[in-house]
Amino acid sequence: MKQGKIEVGILGATGMVGQNFVKFLDAHPWFEVRWLGASDRSAGKKYAEATAWRLEGEMPAAVRELAVEECRPGNAPRLLFSAMDASVATEIERAFAQAGHFVVSNSKNHRMEPDVPLLVPEINPEHLGLAPLQRRRRGWSGLIVTNPNCTTVVLALALAPLKPFGIRRVLMTSMQAISGAGYPGVPGMDVNANVIPFIGGEEEKVESEPLKILGRFTGQEIEPLPARISAHCNRVPVTEGHTETVSVELEAKPRPEELLAAFQAFRGLPQERGLPSAPARPVIYLPERDRPQPRRDAQRERGMTVFVGRLRACPVLDYKFVAMGHNTVRGAAGAAVLNAELMHSEGLLET
Amino acid sequence: MKQGKIEVGILGATGMVGQNFVKFLDAHPWFEVRWLGASDRSAGKKYAEATAWRLEGEMPAAVRELAVEECRPGNAPRLLFSAMDASVATEIERAFAQAGHFVVSNSKNHRMEPDVPLLVPEINPEHLGLAPLQRRRRGWSGLIVTNPNCTTVVLALALAPLKPFGIRRVLMTSMQAISGAGYPGVPGMDVNANVIPFIGGEEEKVESEPLKILGRFTGQEIEPLPARISAHCNRVPVTEGHTETVSVELEAKPRPEELLAAFQAFRGLPQERGLPSAPARPVIYLPERDRPQPRRDAQRERGMTVFVGRLRACPVLDYKFVAMGHNTVRGAAGAAVLNAELMHSEGLLET
Amino acid sequence: MKQGKIEVGILGATGMVGQNFVKFLDAHPWFEVRWLGASDRSAGKKYAEATAWRLEGEMPAAVRELAVEECRPGNAPRLLFSAMDASVATEIERAFAQAGHFVVSNSKNHRMEPDVPLLVPEINPEHLGLAPLQRRRRGWSGLIVTNPNCTTVVLALALAPLKPFGIRRVLMTSMQAISGAGYPGVPGMDVNANVIPFIGGEEEKVESEPLKILGRFTGQEIEPLPARISAHCNRVPVTEGHTETVSVELEAKPRPEELLAAFQAFRGLPQERGLPSAPARPVIYLPERDRPQPRRDAQRERGMTVFVGRLRACPVLDYKFVAMGHNTVRGAAGAAVLNAELMHSEGLLET
Amino acid sequence: MKQGKIEVGILGATGMVGQNFVKFLDAHPWFEVRWLGASDRSAGKKYAEATAWRLEGEMPAAVRELAVEECRPGNAPRLLFSAMDASVATEIERAFAQAGHFVVSNSKNHRMEPDVPLLVPEINPEHLGLAPLQRRRRGWSGLIVTNPNCTTVVLALALAPLKPFGIRRVLMTSMQAISGAGYPGVPGMDVNANVIPFIGGEEEKVESEPLKILGRFTGQEIEPLPARISAHCNRVPVTEGHTETVSVELEAKPRPEELLAAFQAFRGLPQERGLPSAPARPVIYLPERDRPQPRRDAQRERGMTVFVGRLRACPVLDYKFVAMGHNTVRGAAGAAVLNAELMHSEGLLET
Repeated sequence: MKQGKIEVGILGATGMVGQNFVKFLDAHPWFEVRWLGASDRSAGKKYAEATAWRLEGEMPAAVRELAVEECRPGNAPRLLFSAMDASVATEIERAFAQAGHFVVSNSKNHRMEPDVPLLVPEINPEHLGLAPLQRRRRGWSGLIVTNPNCTTVVLALALAPLKPFGIRRVLMTSMQAISGAGYPGVPGMDVNANVIPFIGGEEEKVESEPLKILGRFTGQEIEPLPARISAHCNRVPVTEGHTETVSVELEAKPRPEELLAAFQAFRGLPQERGLPSAPARPVIYLPERDRPQPRRDAQRERGMTVFVGRLRACPVLDYKFVAMGHNTVRGAAGAAVLNAELMHSEGLLET
Repeated sequence: MKQGKIEVGILGATGMVGQNFVKFLDAHPWFEVRWLGASDRSAGKKYAEATAWRLEGEMPAAVRELAVEECRPGNAPRLLFSAMDASVATEIERAFAQAGHFVVSNSKNHRMEPDVPLLVPEINPEHLGLAPLQRRRRGWSGLIVTNPNCTTVVLALALAPLKPFGIRRVLMTSMQAISGAGYPGVPGMDVNANVIPFIGGEEEKVESEPLKILGRFTGQEIEPLPARISAHCNRVPVTEGHTETVSVELEAKPRPEELLAAFQAFRGLPQERGLPSAPARPVIYLPERDRPQPRRDAQRERGMTVFVGRLRACPVLDYKFVAMGHNTVRGAAGAAVLNAELMHSEGLLET
Repeated sequence: MKQGKIEVGILGATGMVGQNFVKFLDAHPWFEVRWLGASDRSAGKKYAEATAWRLEGEMPAAVRELAVEECRPGNAPRLLFSAMDASVATEIERAFAQAGHFVVSNSKNHRMEPDVPLLVPEINPEHLGLAPLQRRRRGWSGLIVTNPNCTTVVLALALAPLKPFGIRRVLMTSMQAISGAGYPGVPGMDVNANVIPFIGGEEEKVESEPLKILGRFTGQEIEPLPARISAHCNRVPVTEGHTETVSVELEAKPRPEELLAAFQAFRGLPQERGLPSAPARPVIYLPERDRPQPRRDAQRERGMTVFVGRLRACPVLDYKFVAMGHNTVRGAAGAAVLNAELMHSEGLLET
Repeated sequence: MKQGKIEVGILGATGMVGQNFVKFLDAHPWFEVRWLGASDRSAGKKYAEATAWRLEGEMPAAVRELAVEECRPGNAPRLLFSAMDASVATEIERAFAQAGHFVVSNSKNHRMEPDVPLLVPEINPEHLGLAPLQRRRRGWSGLIVTNPNCTTVVLALALAPLKPFGIRRVLMTSMQAISGAGYPGVPGMDVNANVIPFIGGEEEKVESEPLKILGRFTGQEIEPLPARISAHCNRVPVTEGHTETVSVELEAKPRPEELLAAFQAFRGLPQERGLPSAPARPVIYLPERDRPQPRRDAQRERGMTVFVGRLRACPVLDYKFVAMGHNTVRGAAGAAVLNAELMHSEGLLET
């Protein structure tokens, strides 16, 4: 291991989300992937053999020869990123947390549990205050920390700058990229030149997770934002980048210039501390009349910025706009890595 | 001309909308295309020479040899379908109406004028009562009748069955097919594997036209529906069929079963009279959880039915659902032809 | 059953190919689907319950209530269309043929067996002469007849008119639609805005099957055409319709006009006898410089015609051109049904 | 200007190819864009105002404020990259060369002129020897140097390693990205979910340019490679990256291992000299059975490497394989910049 780097592992390393972790962590200045966990079927093989690499570009050289291990506590590093499929994540993540591991998870399973932080470091870093409560209540020496669903995070970051104006009601329609469904994911026969107006379980997540993320940590628990969200989720033939149309009702009835200023000014702790994966600006407003666009904008700022555009009055609620973010970076691997960077900068990984 | 058929002409016959008229009118039981008008550049050529045919299938044999004429009143038939580009439609359509022609127009230009019917025959056939007022006020022996924008008509037909419940607020996001932009229309470089969250002028139309369509004819004018609509319009890489997510607030707070029953029961005058282009049912509710889809459903029922699905409660307004219709058939050529059929069945074309 | 119609069954009725058979046979003038076989898992359910319908339009009403049965001889009709997956087709098709059924199969399994006809009715109807040999050799009262791979049939029909000029060498590159891979088939993550330059087993089929199809029946066996074919097979983001670029070396060194005349004149027994699924012309040459195109031409002529275009000199072999046909109609269900129609018109189904 | 950098200009800077030059040259270690020429209509405006930026990411900050000038010799830098449309390139490029400028052109206009180098620096750097002849013959103090058509360069680089085996005949089918047609380029209505089997003028270029590129410089002229090429060119719905299936006849009848070794070993002068835009390897053979793929591989190696895969015996010629390269980088802007780097490393820009 390179000097001073923190060893990390990946649970579910051979799947699409796992591959995104491998790719995002390649050449990371703080973390180094040294352990790869997957199903029993892959255990024992080299990562290069166990994995059908589906991402753009090549598999990073650093992991090719690493042996894949079973997903059981043992010789895994203390810090683990979980890319596990939701169907198996619950028990495995708990077992690792109980055994003292910091599990930074992309799975949906524990997100809404009251003592589990659902983090977006620019929005709610103080939710990490749930950590000691979680440990105490569960008797764990480790910890589970989660990041939101990929559609949620785009919406939450686009709404966060508006929180001071009093968010009351939000109506959102998503046009989601194929990559959000993993691999093999959405059949080409379904999505080619088509819109699929349904994504299982997605609307429920988008209608609840942002309220926790934008909620207030009382010292004991998270009080959800007292707002209502309605989501229409659709799959469209786009490779990367979820686009969302958003209408929002705001208590303070601000002027448009105030909203624009809020988008422009928005920064968070990751920017203040210069965390390695933090974009210079978590939200960027694009003035062109036909942006953001997923194919043209999702890759910008290393996929960690949410782009907003087309702010205008909404005849039904108060304002409407478009938001777009990279669903497998800011919506998955990048989100979790930024969570771990925040935890490290808080000194939490040393405890 | 085949016995008993009514001769019709097409203004703007060589463009994409004009081609759609030619295709839709092929083998029509009442109307026969005998006159094709286009720009001076095309005038004098045979239609097959003047036209780069862009539609699926072949150019109908019946029009190949017809000579293209200039768009000036003269030897054109009394009934004309206008597929003119909005940039030139206003003056030309007026000149024909003044000269005694029935101009059944797909152009946006006259839609919102107070004495011009904006017709969806299943919804507001009584708006044809504007005809004598239009003639009187303008001193015309002819008439201009219009059909809505392609995105509007899908929304209007999906909302019409709910009108008895008192429509108050509507929030809609469209995912529109490429064909809606004509030819060459949207560059492949823009739309391939992308979402373009802007369509010039579209949202304004969708926010105003349905209110006129669903409005009340007082005998003197149209009182618009006292409701508010907000539209987010997007282009997606789909060939035919506009998909729309809709959230709606209803005064009567009906139960879901009542909405389903309203969708199922909805019929109009075209169905009652069996007009040739009328679908058996103008609105069909699909029970599958992931329908309607443009590639799989737009062509059904000869493109004249709007499909609705996924009715469920909306946490922000009252209900939400998905609607989808064929934008170049029900949204353009088919809509205008059905208008003309209604006019004929009313005896209006004989006046 | 409607009077005089021949009862037919479908083996593998719930899969994509099976659905294509159901759709193609709907309202067939000679055949009526009365029996649907599928895996044990589906057996006992109604077809509408057992089947996730993936095709454009609705499931035909006539089959919705039919009970799905296991794929074992018993109460199945004598004439069966096989849409079975290749992994299980061999044994099941043989069992049915042994039990006296006419198995008209779309599976690859028996195509290249010396006593099994690989039929394209316009090209080699005389290959049905293998039927008595197959029965005698195998001791079957039934029969197995096959149609080619979907890429093969487009190539074979495009080459058939050129056979009199002496086909020596053929180089073909295919750009194949997603529907050719069944369901779920090609993941959207692979094919969206991409080319996949590999289709397992496809090139081998395309390099061998046409030689048998274009071969000579000696009365005892099929002498393959003494030519060589090289195939490059690719998947592209197209829904229906395989496009093929073809370069060909011809012994007779004909002039271009002779080739064009050959394409135009080409007809076969199905056209002569007016078989219900026979297109008026099995091959149509399109003079436009940028045709055929799958999205615009595949659906024409009910999907049963192969379109050819862009005939020109090839600097390496003699001529080059483009061919395109509907892969799930002419390349699968429609091909098999036409085979059965030929068999019926030959009186073979009465034996 | 940063110390020591060579000032360069771009002819046709506001179009798509021009934008690609701007993007590719951003942060170039040797060259700095200081002059932007475009049509009279744009002249006088700032680049950011004159240009509708169509590329992924943002317009580089360094050029935003540069004033666009008319394309006339005067205050332009000596080294100019030409992204001019072919319809106007001939006269303008000549005027600049006559006035002493080095015009490194991406236009097709001068490529096949006997005294104009058609360069691929890894293949034929010695063709720069035409420079003094061109100047002498034309009486110019400047020079025109060209790079090939985007489809040609992929083919030429894939064939170059095989040249020692004696290339005799080549049959190629291309599946070309939309970006190759510029902006607005191919209408979405044509290319969405479709294949267009025709690209105007493309096949002629692909059949002739590689023979010049792979030809021998005698000291006086280029003797073209005595081989024959046949091309089928198609447009497919891919954003970036041209994919080509190639069959080739080789005089030496090498074994497959020899071809693989030749692909692996291939390097050129740019690699030897470490030119800034030179990839580590101009050709990379991918062993996976379904690669290269444009969406997954075109962006690798900064778009400057041609990827080859699927080498196997061809039943008609000797071998067949797949090649893929980035059409707007290696096929346009990157190619021209590498040409200029070669010229600089040869000391040619100082003359």
